[in-house]
Amino acid sequence: MIKVIKIGGNVVDNPELLGRFVRDFAAMPGMKILVHGGGVMASQMQKAMGMVPQMVEGRRVTDEETLKVVTMVYAGWCSKHITALLQANGCNAIGLCGADGNAIKARKRAPLYVESLGKEVDYGYVGDVNAECVNAGFIYSLLEKGIVPVFNAINHDGEGNLLNTNADTIASSVAIAMANYRYRSPREVCSRCEECTHCSDDGRLTHETELIYCFEKDGVLYDKDDDRSVIGEITRGRFEDLKKEGIVADGMIPKLTNSFKAIDSGVARVVVKHARNLLNDMGTVLI
Amino acid sequence: MIKVIKIGGNVVDNPELLGRFVRDFAAMPGMKILVHGGGVMASQMQKAMGMVPQMVEGRRVTDEETLKVVTMVYAGWCSKHITALLQANGCNAIGLCGADGNAIKARKRAPLYVESLGKEVDYGYVGDVNAECVNAGFIYSLLEKGIVPVFNAINHDGEGNLLNTNADTIASSVAIAMANYRYRSPREVCSRCEECTHCSDDGRLTHETELIYCFEKDGVLYDKDDDRSVIGEITRGRFEDLKKEGIVADGMIPKLTNSFKAIDSGVARVVVKHARNLLNDMGTVLI
Repeated sequence: MIKVIKIGGNVVDNPELLGRFVRDFAAMPGMKILVHGGGVMASQMQKAMGMVPQMVEGRRVTDEETLKVVTMVYAGWCSKHITALLQANGCNAIGLCGADGNAIKARKRAPLYVESLGKEVDYGYVGDVNAECVNAGFIYSLLEKGIVPVFNAINHDGEGNLLNTNADTIASSVAIAMANYRYRSPREVCSRCEECTHCSDDGRLTHETELIYCFEKDGVLYDKDDDRSVIGEITRGRFEDLKKEGIVADGMIPKLTNSFKAIDSGVARVVVKHARNLLNDMGTVLI
Repeated sequence: MIKVIKIGGNVVDNPELLGRFVRDFAAMPGMKILVHGGGVMASQMQKAMGMVPQMVEGRRVTDEETLKVVTMVYAGWCSKHITALLQANGCNAIGLCGADGNAIKARKRAPLYVESLGKEVDYGYVGDVNAECVNAGFIYSLLEKGIVPVFNAINHDGEGNLLNTNADTIASSVAIAMANYRYRSPREVCSRCEECTHCSDDGRLTHETELIYCFEKDGVLYDKDDDRSVIGEITRGRFEDLKKEGIVADGMIPKLTNSFKAIDSGVARVVVKHARNLLNDMGTVLI
């Protein structure tokens, strides 16, 4: 089993929650990968430097100066702070951006027509990724050694440019890539895990892969104002109903749509839960 | 042969020189490790954020806010920018701070009596390293795969804190650690290099290791105002003479003293040269 866990900026920004999460993540057995957002620090830094953060539909318009700031914040302070905390908890983490070991190569986003603005927007140094962008072999070589990759939102285009990418999409792309990665093992099952399944076609093995989104809610809520109304399990059919009924709305729709895409692409299951519940089975399971 | 190359901030700050260096470094065959300084960007960032950079004897006094800035600049922008440029030149680089893969663990510097000030100075989050702090096994596992580690000045203490460390010392510590690292190879000589020497005592191999300091001068100069007066080779005896004669003075004394320490500790040779001369044999060789 490989677990890919995404934490949002709300966890990164909250020292108490981050400290607890890091302890739990370090204690979690088996192969694991962390993907983290950057929180509000990038905007704070931009403001401190007299820049005006520009967001279009939740994505940061990233000119050259902004790219420097987000790279410094996401791939610098956030990545290395989290990595040092994990190391202190006995987890051999390695903080990576996509350029490191050529782990993730993104494509620069072409100027895009944005309906809400009625015009074309050039996002600048913003990248898009999918599972084919992920160097699963390199990531697996780390996991096999017990090293835990910690990814941030910065990737590269292979031509010397860094690109700012959506961390949710990085998480699902990495999960899909790892779910489909086939490796050779000298033993019938992998030496680090007992849950491998054997591929009959070429004699290689794959790991079952789980994607876990940790955020500030306890899961997908039936009533968004009632934290106790967590829906335990959502199938694709149920998801369509929940959308029609207006229970799943706004930002939750793309998150769940992407989650079901990941399941269609080989990820065993996706869990949406609160960061404090990493080690228990609370939250919403998508299957 | 393993080559450990240090570039200073003057290279990192100069896009043209950095571009040329990166091309040359990428073209260099064999196992190699890069260590880079951070340049003036950290001080610029501090000033842009209304902070006052405080230097004591060339070292930055690093309080909590300063640590964030140097981590962002060195381990964020500089590290990832250089890594992306190397990737674009076909060099599979990985930008690492000491926390990543527990590569280098530093010791926090205790408050120190500084003679020039006549008082004790608390440098804050400043770390000191030596060869024993370096995880040579992890670094070698990357080199063996053709991955090129790129280190910056940020390390960790293993207790969750990042520490600001001198990049020259990181370079010599890494070089000493790699020169003394013994590894098992299924073949008599290593598969990536023809220059291994065989250790008779335990059947393990070592790589000859070279340390190269690239800076803004062509080497150690006989006359500091004449760039053509490069001294080709300096032995330890000659170094003592050059100090007595006042030809080697100021900042060059600790650099060369540390270089001869590295040679005493197993490094085959140290070269001091201009960053633009990486691929030719100009510069000063210390043996």
